[in-house]
Amino acid sequence: MTKFKRSNRIAELTRIFIENPRTNFQLTYFSERFQVAKSSVSEDITILEEYFAEQGLGEITTSAGAAGGVRYIPRMEVKDAKAWMLETISKLAVPERVLPGGYLYMTDLLGEPSFIRSLGRVFAEAFSAVDADMILTVETKGIPIALATSLYLHIPVVVVRRDSKVTEGTTVSVNYLSGSSRRIQTMSLARRAIGNNKRAIIVDDFMKAGGTAKGMINLLQEFQSECVGIGVLMEMAEPKDKLVTDYISLAKLTEVDEIKKTVSVELGSFFEKI
Amino acid sequence: MTKFKRSNRIAELTRIFIENPRTNFQLTYFSERFQVAKSSVSEDITILEEYFAEQGLGEITTSAGAAGGVRYIPRMEVKDAKAWMLETISKLAVPERVLPGGYLYMTDLLGEPSFIRSLGRVFAEAFSAVDADMILTVETKGIPIALATSLYLHIPVVVVRRDSKVTEGTTVSVNYLSGSSRRIQTMSLARRAIGNNKRAIIVDDFMKAGGTAKGMINLLQEFQSECVGIGVLMEMAEPKDKLVTDYISLAKLTEVDEIKKTVSVELGSFFEKI
Repeated sequence: MTKFKRSNRIAELTRIFIENPRTNFQLTYFSERFQVAKSSVSEDITILEEYFAEQGLGEITTSAGAAGGVRYIPRMEVKDAKAWMLETISKLAVPERVLPGGYLYMTDLLGEPSFIRSLGRVFAEAFSAVDADMILTVETKGIPIALATSLYLHIPVVVVRRDSKVTEGTTVSVNYLSGSSRRIQTMSLARRAIGNNKRAIIVDDFMKAGGTAKGMINLLQEFQSECVGIGVLMEMAEPKDKLVTDYISLAKLTEVDEIKKTVSVELGSFFEKI
Repeated sequence: MTKFKRSNRIAELTRIFIENPRTNFQLTYFSERFQVAKSSVSEDITILEEYFAEQGLGEITTSAGAAGGVRYIPRMEVKDAKAWMLETISKLAVPERVLPGGYLYMTDLLGEPSFIRSLGRVFAEAFSAVDADMILTVETKGIPIALATSLYLHIPVVVVRRDSKVTEGTTVSVNYLSGSSRRIQTMSLARRAIGNNKRAIIVDDFMKAGGTAKGMINLLQEFQSECVGIGVLMEMAEPKDKLVTDYISLAKLTEVDEIKKTVSVELGSFFEKI
């Protein structure tokens, strides 16, 4: 194997950090891979560290000792998150998106790779200081959001099912009142999906009264586990009193009129708190 | 704004390419951003182009003219895909994963960010030469696979629902015979989810007889659209004659015995064809 030149080392380090956020790497790993001294790798990392910080892309943290190493923590500046969300709102708050029942069609955005990547980045920023073992969501539309967030936070996604499937083995179920369907529903989680005493961040696409989020919290309790954060892409302004507290929303649907086809969306609580 | 040094330009180009695969960028965009001459950007790109090719990470292609520009096409060497799949098989083919009914528990892997990233990369490689407008999957477990693939192929994901939801607007439904539930089921797709005359790659986690994939092909026909490729993570060896042809699998479940708790998994058809 030949020595890597600095430009190649910088490219490879950037690629590895971007593709493996929050993953610990030993300096030895890089020095062996690049066939250069550890001191050269340290210099490369310092260049990247300064550069990432300068651009507001995140931190490269180094810890000493036997278990030490270097890792990249993606960050996002709030002004960038806000600009992205305002652009998203301008796409969402259009009459063509108003659906029967006063809902807003958002499914297309949740399938757009660049949208979902940015959304994951924003939620990862929102929960960057939270110590969690997993991201919990409920099928179906929460899944892309949970997955995108997990790619930045580097913790697994666990999906709550609306019915129990043969391919999940033994499941635990709870009943909950869904705001959107206005009826009692069941959600279930595979016994083997999570252990006990876990800390979960709950994410979903939409929150009306918070019944689904409340159901997920109850489900977590069945696994002696707790919810350490809730994030939704869009909340409805009404009802004002939700069944859960301490959640963040990125956007708030303040008005939607099916007849007049008017819709009004504001920035959500995440942008108020900061 | 200050001029970017070469090491910073290399870092930023790598980051932009990795985070925006198959996206066209004008040289002018980079030269303005970096405050350097286009010729310097060209040199940087040549360094990256050689490096990415050398490492088997993908191609950086440059096209001339007014609509021209530079884009990064992620690739993966077959030997790397194979090594990754063999490692995956060793995790899957264990007695603890055998479920009642002769199924294999795979849900945990589909929530692991590093697994799902690699899986997306392998499917993107499998369909790298396919000209498609979208990735189509059916809820629930196909979604993370579709999303991961979309992040590399840079085309949107469309999710077929097993029931029709109020938040989707008008939907088109077809009935199909599911191999796993052994009964007639319904799948539906929102009218506004896809236009007409589209080309879709279908991905899913599991294929038994191919009934679900066949249902999705029928659904596409309702939109005057066609299936241009099918990929599944795991197929069952039996039944040998599937309802669809021209699909690829990454792994093949050749034996699973619920009583003896034995399971046997081989490399799938993708690795035979190449």
